[in-house]
Amino acid sequence: MAGSPVTAEAENRQMLAPHHDGSPLHVSTQTPALGEEVSVRLRVPAGDRGLAALGLAALDAVSVRSNPNHEPRFAPAVLLGERDGWEWWEAGVEVENPVHGYRFLLQGQAAGGSGPRQLWLNAEGLHDTETRDSEDFKLVASAPEMRPPAWLASSVLYQVFPDRFARSAAADDRSLPEWAIPAAWGAPLDPNPPGRSAQFFGGDLDGVREHLDHLDALGVNLLYLTPVFAGRSNHRYDALSFDAVDPLLGGDDALVRLVEAAHTRGIRVIGDLTSNHSGDAHEWFRAARHHPEAPESDFYYWRDADNDGYESWLGVPSLPKFNWASRELRRRFIEGQDSVVARWLKPPFNLDGWRIDVANMTGRLGAEDLNAEVRQTIRRTMAEVNPDTILLGESTNDAASDFQGDAWHGAMTYAPFTRPLWSWLMQPGSRAAGGIGFAAAQVPAHTGVQFFEAHNRFVAGFPWRTRLGTLNALDTHDTPRFLTSALPGTVPVAFGLAATLPGIPVVFAGDEFGLVGEDGEASRTPIPWQRLDEDPSRWSSGEDRAYRDLARDTTALYAALIAVRRSQPALNGGGIRWLHVGDDVLVFVRESAENSVLVAAGRGDFTVTIPAAALATAFTGADAPLPLFGAEVDGFGGVQLAASDDGITLSATGPRFAAWAHSGVESP
Amino acid sequence: MAGSPVTAEAENRQMLAPHHDGSPLHVSTQTPALGEEVSVRLRVPAGDRGLAALGLAALDAVSVRSNPNHEPRFAPAVLLGERDGWEWWEAGVEVENPVHGYRFLLQGQAAGGSGPRQLWLNAEGLHDTETRDSEDFKLVASAPEMRPPAWLASSVLYQVFPDRFARSAAADDRSLPEWAIPAAWGAPLDPNPPGRSAQFFGGDLDGVREHLDHLDALGVNLLYLTPVFAGRSNHRYDALSFDAVDPLLGGDDALVRLVEAAHTRGIRVIGDLTSNHSGDAHEWFRAARHHPEAPESDFYYWRDADNDGYESWLGVPSLPKFNWASRELRRRFIEGQDSVVARWLKPPFNLDGWRIDVANMTGRLGAEDLNAEVRQTIRRTMAEVNPDTILLGESTNDAASDFQGDAWHGAMTYAPFTRPLWSWLMQPGSRAAGGIGFAAAQVPAHTGVQFFEAHNRFVAGFPWRTRLGTLNALDTHDTPRFLTSALPGTVPVAFGLAATLPGIPVVFAGDEFGLVGEDGEASRTPIPWQRLDEDPSRWSSGEDRAYRDLARDTTALYAALIAVRRSQPALNGGGIRWLHVGDDVLVFVRESAENSVLVAAGRGDFTVTIPAAALATAFTGADAPLPLFGAEVDGFGGVQLAASDDGITLSATGPRFAAWAHSGVESP
Repeated sequence: MAGSPVTAEAENRQMLAPHHDGSPLHVSTQTPALGEEVSVRLRVPAGDRGLAALGLAALDAVSVRSNPNHEPRFAPAVLLGERDGWEWWEAGVEVENPVHGYRFLLQGQAAGGSGPRQLWLNAEGLHDTETRDSEDFKLVASAPEMRPPAWLASSVLYQVFPDRFARSAAADDRSLPEWAIPAAWGAPLDPNPPGRSAQFFGGDLDGVREHLDHLDALGVNLLYLTPVFAGRSNHRYDALSFDAVDPLLGGDDALVRLVEAAHTRGIRVIGDLTSNHSGDAHEWFRAARHHPEAPESDFYYWRDADNDGYESWLGVPSLPKFNWASRELRRRFIEGQDSVVARWLKPPFNLDGWRIDVANMTGRLGAEDLNAEVRQTIRRTMAEVNPDTILLGESTNDAASDFQGDAWHGAMTYAPFTRPLWSWLMQPGSRAAGGIGFAAAQVPAHTGVQFFEAHNRFVAGFPWRTRLGTLNALDTHDTPRFLTSALPGTVPVAFGLAATLPGIPVVFAGDEFGLVGEDGEASRTPIPWQRLDEDPSRWSSGEDRAYRDLARDTTALYAALIAVRRSQPALNGGGIRWLHVGDDVLVFVRESAENSVLVAAGRGDFTVTIPAAALATAFTGADAPLPLFGAEVDGFGGVQLAASDDGITLSATGPRFAAWAHSGVESP
Repeated sequence: MAGSPVTAEAENRQMLAPHHDGSPLHVSTQTPALGEEVSVRLRVPAGDRGLAALGLAALDAVSVRSNPNHEPRFAPAVLLGERDGWEWWEAGVEVENPVHGYRFLLQGQAAGGSGPRQLWLNAEGLHDTETRDSEDFKLVASAPEMRPPAWLASSVLYQVFPDRFARSAAADDRSLPEWAIPAAWGAPLDPNPPGRSAQFFGGDLDGVREHLDHLDALGVNLLYLTPVFAGRSNHRYDALSFDAVDPLLGGDDALVRLVEAAHTRGIRVIGDLTSNHSGDAHEWFRAARHHPEAPESDFYYWRDADNDGYESWLGVPSLPKFNWASRELRRRFIEGQDSVVARWLKPPFNLDGWRIDVANMTGRLGAEDLNAEVRQTIRRTMAEVNPDTILLGESTNDAASDFQGDAWHGAMTYAPFTRPLWSWLMQPGSRAAGGIGFAAAQVPAHTGVQFFEAHNRFVAGFPWRTRLGTLNALDTHDTPRFLTSALPGTVPVAFGLAATLPGIPVVFAGDEFGLVGEDGEASRTPIPWQRLDEDPSRWSSGEDRAYRDLARDTTALYAALIAVRRSQPALNGGGIRWLHVGDDVLVFVRESAENSVLVAAGRGDFTVTIPAAALATAFTGADAPLPLFGAEVDGFGGVQLAASDDGITLSATGPRFAAWAHSGVESP
């Protein structure tokens, strides 16, 4: 019963809709200062087809409505001219608040002579009734230290869960703590407690370092390590201390060695901090428990005077929740040069940033909400040490309210991409347990239209720069692996979208070898380096061969798509325009002044025609598109592209993913 | 291109949609405490028709998803049973945060066997993809002093602009200040500066008191006076001081007399404060200007060291903006027993609350946002003096972000009701200047469907209790008058909706006499008491007679609709369910355990059939609906209602407004 957008009325009218996004083609600066005037540009399809798509007989005026101090202000847009079938309108917006929302107003005469018609374009789409402020486009003018470094938007992230990635020889000499249940590398995962979190494979940081060649070959340039501080579990989210790397991982020196080796290969490395809780064996908690007089006493929420009962993460006793009202906790953990947050970004460790666990719950309890203070303090401290670092926050559902550019650079979230993608590409009736967050662990079956609606609804809440820093993950260490229940042949479609939609493509170590896993912890599969060994003489069976072939083909697929992502300017910060949204196929174009990338993703057979009027550049003659991936070659499969002066026709026997590069977008 | 709701697919499928709202039928308490478990109820149409409307072959489970500390939590709902064709489901929600969002999840098997289907019901409607947190239903557990008194939701507000309502004899003896341009009562309004704000008619508070009989006869029970403190304009929003009632209005004693007289009639009275700015002749501003050493110096934002240049409301120099970082400003104006906010609520004045001017901009400038601190301080102070008072905030566009139940009880806003109503009922091509806030002063032509979409989108952002305290105004002292450009015969439709939709009906003094006005200030028409005089012998012309007849008929219309509003339990806090949304007609039902009210509002001819399955009570035999207003009587016009066991058919030659009372809703 909610307001339905104009473009929902007619199938794929969006291919001829007015367009704006936060990319450099449409916004004059990505980092405005408070008080700065920013130029914003709207593109409107020229001519009668464009007007017809808007239900207009004539377009009389375009203006920008922004909302300084929550009071609307309108600025007229001027028509700069027409280029390649698009009218370009431009207006100036003075950025008065740290988050300055704006939307476009198109005024015209309704087709059919029923009088004036007003259309609003916001981050969610085109509407013929007034819209909410929360869906406005947004300019962000928060303090300079809150800005993400430019490299974030060009990153491809590789996630490593240290206990399961690789074991160095040194691991054999380490004696295990009491809680650990030793497991041989390659042994099956124990899905049940205590094994679930105590089963210990002994992967370590030198093991990661020894496989940097693999990351290089894959083409990733950002390594994310889940916690490396000692805990009493294989996941280490129950830290005992934040002052030393777990000796079971090789200790501080191993981290120094790993980061140095990664940096020499141009791979940045970020760590993982739990700002919501510590482990119940953490030195601070042990000092505070039953010791109301301890300096650490106010680090936690106690239920009684003698510090016995306490608040914990979702009621799990091993994870006591931090109370951020404590100044001393802030000083030790997040504030200033001597804090935990600062220490690991400095030599000799030189981490390139942090991923913060349970960022959404941090500092929130009952009537208290210190979340903004904590996240902003973390980022300020990071910037003091090294502003060229990134800060990602875990917020697995609707993250927008906390991610408005005041601290978090991007979200580790599953609402905009991961869950809609699974709903489109999983086998109907699939279940998905664990942190992926499907209601009732049930994957609802979605059409491509529903994928688009859910994706579009959640990304609309982010400022553009936050959207570029947000993770496009098929899966992570907290979810089942995508391949486990995916429709056959859809991995290229899924990772292709991760690599070409705005955001950071994520490879959870093992996905590139075709590994599977049923839920968060059961998917933390040790990487079977032995079975993947290059030497065929070691293959003991056809099963081994099939396994190896799947791994080799999948790795090649990931490497190829990552190469496309990293090589194309339009895929690293360029805008996005949807050209076709259908039940079985999605077509969009990423656009920049340097080049454009046309993307087609189909889960089934499709034939789609995109009129030339919807394209902002020519597709014929000298401007013929250059196949980047998955394009039909001599009938050997892939997506066929037929270009004429009338437009282009894409067809394939799905599932297929394909991308083409073509010339950049020119504006008047 | 935004997510389109399930129910938009099929015309008026919402008449058979699952239903929840914040009313007592569906929520066990309106004033939960933090930590309290609240029962929430969902109604689902029973049987195959209900399932078909949801695209389900079977409904397997219902649960409630809430979001404590921004982390989702699901609670299963149990089926209480079936009554009058509806299944009632109930779940418990523990309120963990002051604003605790929740939505319903319906899980079932898709019709056609395509697998599991999940549907989400939130404040905006029904969706088959995941939804944003901002559109959740909301339970409010803010501090008790922030709660509105029960009487707010049963109020009918009458707005008086003192200079233009009525002159007492005493007014003749007053000498005017220099700025004032005297005007004879009934003289035409001067639309141009300086007359626009300086033309002075001399209405006063004793004049208001002398006409309380009229308010009584109309049936209103809440009087809102725009500012009564002296200014240098006829609107007095440029206060010279907040310490005394303008002598031109009769001074403090006149206010005491007016409030006492109103209270004896059961009419409450609220005042109007400008928390965003004062006048540039205000005693505080005069003390601070060019006096950096003055105690009032930090009350304003100065652009230079010698307190010369300053920030002002939208750059209007006569309205310098307050700087709420000043502790002394808070102490004098809004904080504590001796503050301005407190003083006028205490004897001998006893005002029943405040309407705050430009609430949306208050405390906001550049990177600073003190709005929440200011509004919460104002309400805490009011509660210290008298918790049985109300606090309304002016926020004429998307008010939701500030109106989550932490201070403001309701909004004076035009986005959810006023502008959509005008767009539906104005003559196409009408213009509307001034504070009503239409883009380009242009009233876009809307269908009833668009009215519903815009209304629904903006009310979805409010907690239920805030929605009940928000103003349903056809117009105010800041807007043109509705009648000026309305489609002929639509006043009953417009005020009928104001009186029957959730919210506070507003009568801007003069509307009930059929007055017109082109824009905010030109609509501040002096009430022509003389011309309205009862004695026909004074009528000097047919024009006078026509004028008098219009006034008499319009007053009778307003009185009748106000009587309906005040007499029906369902219209004073009951839920709302939309039964039909068409281009020319809207049908909904307000529901409570005590009774229900069926409402039909048409701007053109219509015939609508509502199936019995969509009604929650019987409509035949002993339960036949009781006409309250506008029902067809012996063919003399109005809306015909034909009830059978199959349902009801409503038909009329529009424009028409009608309402019927019938039995209350029973739950299992």
